[in-house]
Amino acid sequence: MKARIVTIGDEILIGQIIDTNSAWLAAQLNALGVRVHSIYSISDTAEAIHKALDESIDQVELVLMTGGLGPTKDDITKAALADWFESDWKIDETVLARVKHHFASRGIPMPAVNLDQAKVPSVCEILTNEHGSAPGMWFKKGNTVFISMPGVPYEMKAIFADQAVPKIVERLSLSKIVHKTIMTQGIGESSLMEIITPWEESLKEFDLKLAYLPSYGLVRLRISGYETTNAAIDQIMQQKVDELLPLISDFVYGFDDEKLEQVVGRILASCDQTIATAESCTGGYLAHMITSVSGSSAYYKGSALTYANDAKVNVLGVAGNTIDKLGAVSEEVAIQMADGARKLLQTDFAVSTTGVAGPNGGTDEKPVGTVWIGIASPSRTYALKFMMGNHRERNIRRTALHALQLVRKEVMRENKLSLEDVLLRNNN
Amino acid sequence: MKARIVTIGDEILIGQIIDTNSAWLAAQLNALGVRVHSIYSISDTAEAIHKALDESIDQVELVLMTGGLGPTKDDITKAALADWFESDWKIDETVLARVKHHFASRGIPMPAVNLDQAKVPSVCEILTNEHGSAPGMWFKKGNTVFISMPGVPYEMKAIFADQAVPKIVERLSLSKIVHKTIMTQGIGESSLMEIITPWEESLKEFDLKLAYLPSYGLVRLRISGYETTNAAIDQIMQQKVDELLPLISDFVYGFDDEKLEQVVGRILASCDQTIATAESCTGGYLAHMITSVSGSSAYYKGSALTYANDAKVNVLGVAGNTIDKLGAVSEEVAIQMADGARKLLQTDFAVSTTGVAGPNGGTDEKPVGTVWIGIASPSRTYALKFMMGNHRERNIRRTALHALQLVRKEVMRENKLSLEDVLLRNNN
Repeated sequence: MKARIVTIGDEILIGQIIDTNSAWLAAQLNALGVRVHSIYSISDTAEAIHKALDESIDQVELVLMTGGLGPTKDDITKAALADWFESDWKIDETVLARVKHHFASRGIPMPAVNLDQAKVPSVCEILTNEHGSAPGMWFKKGNTVFISMPGVPYEMKAIFADQAVPKIVERLSLSKIVHKTIMTQGIGESSLMEIITPWEESLKEFDLKLAYLPSYGLVRLRISGYETTNAAIDQIMQQKVDELLPLISDFVYGFDDEKLEQVVGRILASCDQTIATAESCTGGYLAHMITSVSGSSAYYKGSALTYANDAKVNVLGVAGNTIDKLGAVSEEVAIQMADGARKLLQTDFAVSTTGVAGPNGGTDEKPVGTVWIGIASPSRTYALKFMMGNHRERNIRRTALHALQLVRKEVMRENKLSLEDVLLRNNN
Repeated sequence: MKARIVTIGDEILIGQIIDTNSAWLAAQLNALGVRVHSIYSISDTAEAIHKALDESIDQVELVLMTGGLGPTKDDITKAALADWFESDWKIDETVLARVKHHFASRGIPMPAVNLDQAKVPSVCEILTNEHGSAPGMWFKKGNTVFISMPGVPYEMKAIFADQAVPKIVERLSLSKIVHKTIMTQGIGESSLMEIITPWEESLKEFDLKLAYLPSYGLVRLRISGYETTNAAIDQIMQQKVDELLPLISDFVYGFDDEKLEQVVGRILASCDQTIATAESCTGGYLAHMITSVSGSSAYYKGSALTYANDAKVNVLGVAGNTIDKLGAVSEEVAIQMADGARKLLQTDFAVSTTGVAGPNGGTDEKPVGTVWIGIASPSRTYALKFMMGNHRERNIRRTALHALQLVRKEVMRENKLSLEDVLLRNNN
């Protein structure tokens, strides 16, 4: 089955916002096994909407429209749809009750214009919007289904996932597709491929497919399969995952889009232990990742961000002559930083970063991208060297990811936890 | 004049990458005074490419195509274009020399397949690619110009800005459009509007237009005007900016997309002074913003990121009984954190953040979004309270921006600098 995504509104056409809705919908459709034929961004006019619908009906079986349903622009888009589907209007009582309740609960009298939000083309079926007043709408003409949703991302996502997907699967008789995503860090796409190609071959027998999805220093491995009549797909997937994990156990940290910083936080919280950071080259980004997890104050005590050498000495107690002799980017300084942070912030673990993020500051001996990461735990302290590229922003992110991966392994080692102990098997 | 942007390739259709190229091109075209009629993302097949071209020739006068010119996919797209334009092939000597030089300079023998990169449809004009081997191509059919560019963002951007824009302006007889963008922080779109509406009215006389471009805690004000024959446009723009600045001097920090963290860094570096941060609720994000500026180690010494209360006491010397009595989110703690960081890291200035980022941790007295920012300078220390919303990620970013804005003002005050002293007037 082929689909088209149509984004309605001028914000994208003037380059004011980036179209993230379409990327999200495309990934969702792809995961459902629906091929996205094309994505159109068009203007919020009846003419442009009609043209897009005309051009779609013979080309695709599913059209997903987003945007153009805000309170001020409501009339044009809905009217354009009613027009094209040659439909009368009806008042949807559920939407009306929702809009009335919205105003009543705030003690505000409802402006008459908001009554219009409950007015919808009579030929459409309503897709309930749990998070806003503009409902989703489901139309059918010829062999094509047309779905209109508001452009506000969290409203659109909820309507699509909760309301549209079940109907799409049922009405368009899609085979239900099942996915499992394995999250890896610390290995590139091609190196992964070399290791797991024989295993990948074994997927064919069960008609399972594998996708490599690299993004920003991580590679996600997504296994997909259609639900077979014997419903054994879940077991087969589980078996294949069990065969895969031992091959790449050094790199796997979780399933299904769980973030590495969430995994680290989850393990630390479950062990009732704490961590501190001592950052130089990552410049606060590692702390930012850790504290972006809500509830991180339970296990994260803080960071000594020692950008300047004298800060390393004064705040973390790094020996001045170590820096003089070996330089700030060195194994010994990384170790002293981690030890210093663990002591200063009185935590169970500490992690340090020191390196040349670039684009300047590299030398022959320590080129841009040279990074040392230090790890201090109750039983030991050590540091590892990494060579990143020469792109400042990417180096910072990659270093932070490597640091989190090392922390995860050290916390597991210290607490004698196996990969199986810490993975969330059903993280959907 | 109307334009269409066409993105060729499957990465966007499967949702693997977000289409940032189109947003960039749309903003550029908009700035040139060209209206973007629509944006299409299509598959990398001759059929899809031909259909998009067929649908475009009668609808728009300019088609910008990106993608589908990588070394492995070269043949399909270029062949599809040659086909549609009914063109023979030619070898472009400049492109050939460039490809040969690329391999020679690395001492690698050139694979025969790379010769194909110099093969282009004979009806096209070449747009030189300074950063890669696949050239841009300029076609004309009927009244429509078609430009094909590689999808790699920095290659595409250079080809478009340096090669395509001058030709578009010349061949399509566009009036040259002039812009000036004023960057503001700390005031919303509607409040800005209330202040500057009378001034905005005065733009009409000169046929100047104003756009409010809000994004992530900032509002950019963009003034646009067409170059008039008397070439007075630059002077008129300058005069209008001079009239505007005094009205909103509390919020203006720069021109033309300069970042607030760059401005702060520029001012500190020019005064040969240093700064430290003491972060709690921003969790490292403020440090990350400051250190994302290359060269920041010249003025930034580091941060004490004291997430836990005992870290505030042990690292920054905040008094334990102050926290007990007033809570960690308080004016007094913000002040003690800023003073502590300035002393600990031996800097001229320090800035601190302490607040309830959310989504949890709020109380009736201090709801989610309550933030104190402290500023310490050689002559004084003070703290200001801000009320953010209840979205964790946005609160963190907004707090960091407010903190940078306060730092900018304090450094200027301490060094007796006026806004005029620190603005980069010609930042294009």
